[in-house]
Amino acid sequence: MKSPSEQNYIQQLSIDCVIFGYHDKQLKVLVPKLDFKGDFWALPAGFIGQEEGIGPAARRILVERTGISNVYLDQFRVFGDAERSNAQVLKRIVELNQDKLGEKWLNRKEVEWVTRRFVSIGYYALVDINKVIPRKNDIDVSIEWYPVNALPTLIMDHNELVTQALETLRLNLDQKLIAFNLLPETFTMKELQELYEAIFDKPFPRNNFQKKMLDLNVLERLEKKFTGAANKAPYLYRFQQANS
Amino acid sequence: MKSPSEQNYIQQLSIDCVIFGYHDKQLKVLVPKLDFKGDFWALPAGFIGQEEGIGPAARRILVERTGISNVYLDQFRVFGDAERSNAQVLKRIVELNQDKLGEKWLNRKEVEWVTRRFVSIGYYALVDINKVIPRKNDIDVSIEWYPVNALPTLIMDHNELVTQALETLRLNLDQKLIAFNLLPETFTMKELQELYEAIFDKPFPRNNFQKKMLDLNVLERLEKKFTGAANKAPYLYRFQQANS
Repeated sequence: MKSPSEQNYIQQLSIDCVIFGYHDKQLKVLVPKLDFKGDFWALPAGFIGQEEGIGPAARRILVERTGISNVYLDQFRVFGDAERSNAQVLKRIVELNQDKLGEKWLNRKEVEWVTRRFVSIGYYALVDINKVIPRKNDIDVSIEWYPVNALPTLIMDHNELVTQALETLRLNLDQKLIAFNLLPETFTMKELQELYEAIFDKPFPRNNFQKKMLDLNVLERLEKKFTGAANKAPYLYRFQQANS
Repeated sequence: MKSPSEQNYIQQLSIDCVIFGYHDKQLKVLVPKLDFKGDFWALPAGFIGQEEGIGPAARRILVERTGISNVYLDQFRVFGDAERSNAQVLKRIVELNQDKLGEKWLNRKEVEWVTRRFVSIGYYALVDINKVIPRKNDIDVSIEWYPVNALPTLIMDHNELVTQALETLRLNLDQKLIAFNLLPETFTMKELQELYEAIFDKPFPRNNFQKKMLDLNVLERLEKKFTGAANKAPYLYRFQQANS
């Protein structure tokens, strides 16, 4: 990645990605921790190349952090208050990490570029968590999945970004039939219901839920395989529709 | 408005507004026509001041064109293909309008600024058309309401912006209860149904529609006034919930 100060990126415009996964009956978000004293967590983010569309830029950032590209990804909102900037965060990092000030990325020009006011386009991605190998980049100390309702305190307005991404996910869940992106290829009705309950953070009555899902007409029920325990095993379903 | 070339605006970032109104049983969009030979129509648009939030910038553009500010206004999508730019349009304007090339706004520096690649944040507004007095600005020859399904050919991707704004309006109509912003303060059930039919471009069965609207629990039915014809007049409703 070329230095942003070289102006090969659009100025004052960034992309922040809320990457949702589902595991252990919990909706989770992939969050890197910066390699600085002071406990700084920040959403995966990046800039937009002068010859790069905003969609491809978002997908590039997603691939950098997950290793996979063929997943559901969409914009959800732009964050652009007049005061929105990295300046306060950078100031605290510099105060707490005097020993690292000599490192290249903290040179004066780059910090100047990155601490101006930034408008950020929020994207959210839905991934099958089993297919992701989280990747930290060269300024991270770690990258982990956190339950959406037990996130650490993120920098800037990033916690608010997650809240808004979750709201969009809930609004779009039925109308755009996107929940299936969070599941493996086959799943039981119980697993699908548990996913919905995790996303909406509330229980659904079982019979209603099953009827509602089947009425959507997008689930294919697989034939049971006749192994020993198969007769007691629940049906597996698969999502029928091409999507993303 | 200061010249954009002075860099008091964020570079390469603009706002385009799709302003919806409702009249004569038609959903309409407010579209200015540029004061140039060649028939150029463009959505109301503007830039974002360095000390201005994106929301306030969108509202400023809306007020400039409608004279009213207290109306529903929200983002719907960002348009940011790598090739997205005004350059082709400006080139055609210059070709067809040689006689105007001396005018200030066509000076070389400003054209350079405005023909770079631009990422645009799409906003849509819902207004009570009776309260709007459309205002052209100094590069328009006129500004008119056009039915959404009979728009002229707009510059760049502006027709696509309208299509996407309409899709968002449809998606959000029930969940965010925003249709009422397009109506006067009081309306009959028939008028409300006609509005929905205009937005979705299809008829709704009358009994179902009425039940669905009443079930939303946001309509207040007004008492009839006992004038001569009142007993035959349909009930008037008012939207109960604070909103915008």
